Amino acid sequence: MSTDLIARLSAILGPSGLITEEADMASYAIDWRRLFPGRPLCVARPASTAEVAEVVKACRAAGARLVPQGGNTGLAGGAVPDASGGEVVLSLTRMNKVRAIDPVGLTLAADAGCILKVAQDAAADAGRLLPISLAAEGSATVGGVVSTNAGGVNVLRYGMARALVLGLEVVLADGTIVDMARQLRKDNAGYDLKQLFIGTEGTLGIVTGVVLRLVPRPKHTVTALLSVPSPQAALDLLALAQEELGDTISAFELMSGYSFDLLKRHLSLTAPIAAGDWFVLIEAGASLSGLREAAESALAAALENGTALDGVIAETGAQATQLWALREHITDGEAREGKSMKHDVSVPIVAVPAFLEAADIAIAEGAPGAKVNAFGHLGDGNIHYNVVMAPGQDGAAINTLVHDVVARFSGSISAEHGIGQYRVDELLRRRAPAEVALALTVKRALDPDNFLNPGKVLPAPA
Amino acid sequence: MSTDLIARLSAILGPSGLITEEADMASYAIDWRRLFPGRPLCVARPASTAEVAEVVKACRAAGARLVPQGGNTGLAGGAVPDASGGEVVLSLTRMNKVRAIDPVGLTLAADAGCILKVAQDAAADAGRLLPISLAAEGSATVGGVVSTNAGGVNVLRYGMARALVLGLEVVLADGTIVDMARQLRKDNAGYDLKQLFIGTEGTLGIVTGVVLRLVPRPKHTVTALLSVPSPQAALDLLALAQEELGDTISAFELMSGYSFDLLKRHLSLTAPIAAGDWFVLIEAGASLSGLREAAESALAAALENGTALDGVIAETGAQATQLWALREHITDGEAREGKSMKHDVSVPIVAVPAFLEAADIAIAEGAPGAKVNAFGHLGDGNIHYNVVMAPGQDGAAINTLVHDVVARFSGSISAEHGIGQYRVDELLRRRAPAEVALALTVKRALDPDNFLNPGKVLPAPA
Repeated sequence: MSTDLIARLSAILGPSGLITEEADMASYAIDWRRLFPGRPLCVARPASTAEVAEVVKACRAAGARLVPQGGNTGLAGGAVPDASGGEVVLSLTRMNKVRAIDPVGLTLAADAGCILKVAQDAAADAGRLLPISLAAEGSATVGGVVSTNAGGVNVLRYGMARALVLGLEVVLADGTIVDMARQLRKDNAGYDLKQLFIGTEGTLGIVTGVVLRLVPRPKHTVTALLSVPSPQAALDLLALAQEELGDTISAFELMSGYSFDLLKRHLSLTAPIAAGDWFVLIEAGASLSGLREAAESALAAALENGTALDGVIAETGAQATQLWALREHITDGEAREGKSMKHDVSVPIVAVPAFLEAADIAIAEGAPGAKVNAFGHLGDGNIHYNVVMAPGQDGAAINTLVHDVVARFSGSISAEHGIGQYRVDELLRRRAPAEVALALTVKRALDPDNFLNPGKVLPAPA
Repeated sequence: MSTDLIARLSAILGPSGLITEEADMASYAIDWRRLFPGRPLCVARPASTAEVAEVVKACRAAGARLVPQGGNTGLAGGAVPDASGGEVVLSLTRMNKVRAIDPVGLTLAADAGCILKVAQDAAADAGRLLPISLAAEGSATVGGVVSTNAGGVNVLRYGMARALVLGLEVVLADGTIVDMARQLRKDNAGYDLKQLFIGTEGTLGIVTGVVLRLVPRPKHTVTALLSVPSPQAALDLLALAQEELGDTISAFELMSGYSFDLLKRHLSLTAPIAAGDWFVLIEAGASLSGLREAAESALAAALENGTALDGVIAETGAQATQLWALREHITDGEAREGKSMKHDVSVPIVAVPAFLEAADIAIAEGAPGAKVNAFGHLGDGNIHYNVVMAPGQDGAAINTLVHDVVARFSGSISAEHGIGQYRVDELLRRRAPAEVALALTVKRALDPDNFLNPGKVLPAPA
């Protein structure tokens, strides 16, 4: 059976479109964090939407399940096959072109496999901004970004990926191509079916093309680093900054003093300001003049009233890059400190200080000796509450400790990383039965045979 | 059977929660435009989500279909019952409270039946902006706004209603309450099921509560009216304005010279600037200083290079209101001119000039004597292309003429008004079969008996 399928796929895809050698499949078989090693039957690399549809039909006819994959940079194991040796990886990376850019209508159309950075650069060349920015942007694909509803550092101003999707082209579980790749800013004609495929990680259909919204590129940018005495002070600073800068704020990142200890100890990176127990990195952008003056005025006010202890506004682009490097190297510093359990949680923004306090108590009591490395997107209520474990500690127990506190604050156990295979069990345990049942109803309607990315987001088929 | 149901509903809702007298039901039975007169069995007015669930179960058990209704201000007949006398109207208007406001986290929670204007005012009282604004805001409910994915004049900057929904509380067709009324800015834990109920006009479930995103209230606003020689010049003006003002632009409205003729002839309203063939109304808002200077600079540049023929920037709030009154009275002027066919269409923004030219030719050739009253949200590619008919002309034929041109530009036949019962046949005719089939798959999965708002958005049950 599998020999027949491989012959059929080879006929559809040609020699450059199918990988069957184990060594060549290695990078498609395991996730970026190397937590979920799998073994695919083969890796199909279609060059067109029509080929994707043919691959779907062939696999379905042969009873082989399909795992769509973009840049394979996900953090939840959502794009890799299981270890059965029977799943086919469908890699979209050969469909990698920007299809069209409209700088006045502010739209960009691209193949699903187009690298996010390539799309960003194409928008920049047209004088516009594609406002999705995340660490993996040099490898992540726009189709993966949409399929996982990716977040990143600009969510505060521009929203998650979903908010930027104007159109999609999708292949359904039966091989039907649904072309919804419209370039319209407004379209209320019937159900907005593309929503079904955003953030559902390829479990309801395969995204083959996207139309994304662009925004005007801000002419002026300010980047500032401040030290603050507490998370509550950081929250007060957010309110103050919003008062002065309105919705020009594109990033408002909170980082713990411990995060900065790790940067110093392992990477010799230090803050150019006096230390506080916490740090905040703010970025704002605008086309209007007056941005820097407003930022300086906000900083002065924050220092004056004690919300901030010290602070600096970058004078040059290079300085801004240095400030961002602090934020971006935190996970690197953490990795050099020891083994950690990562949590990508969100709570209502005003609850962040109370959440941090409660979670710290839970860890101190339940996992003594562990160290908390908390940082993240305070402006979105999204904290990466990572716990560096003491020797012999149980990661799963720490997970439960943290997520129990999240539940007390009506938060989410996955703010931006998705569920993949990593968090399925926990999602099922923590979500209300009515929501789980509704999700299963949708899955059964669109993919009754559990053919698409089985075991991701929802339970694996029995 | 219906007597039993009414007794059961009366027991659930009490005397103030059920209307059965025909005279008292009149305002619930017909839409605002008075195009779709219906006859309900009764009007149920629950006071809580639990009562909504009980009403759903009682109606379902009795085999009576349910038509959810908010402020009944829709333009597509989506919230009124058919003429059978067997459908129950479920009015949410007794559930009308703002539940909570978080000015730092920028969220507002409300019952579905809360009037949009009440929610706007509550946000304003907290120093924040609920950026959904539309003509019917004094009667429309937030639940209706979400259920129809309403647009309005701020879409250019803030998106349609969908972009502002953080959480929903929903009652399903079997009476299950699904509480997704989370206050989170980011939540990627599993399928984002609330998307199923946004813009689906009550056909998949009943929205009973909403959590909406607020934004900082801009400190400075500029409102300008310009006359321009052509739609292409208006598009050039949009590019110029975006260059100077970035994404501070919240409204960019195009109005034809004929629209202004109607204002003058029937309402004695005149533009305070020299006439052009077309007019543009622009509004922008920012927290930064420098907005007015940038607007003045943009106006000077537009006059200098001939993009604009004349223009004025409002000096006071009262003047801004006067400029907006011109835009807001166009439909009133149109109504006094004669019977018209309305079209709420969108095309890619850059295609608007070519669309208008092609549609004008189609009307001149296919419906000689008819007059085109075109206006709308150019910044969103959304044109209200209304046609004032000559005596004896066939409205349906004019509909077809206009929508055929929309199809040539890959546009939408409903940019913001939805489908309701008004556009069902045309939607089915114009959408690709794969999309229609997918919509029906979702409907069957969530509402297999066609119990919720039958005949709206999708075909009526046989």
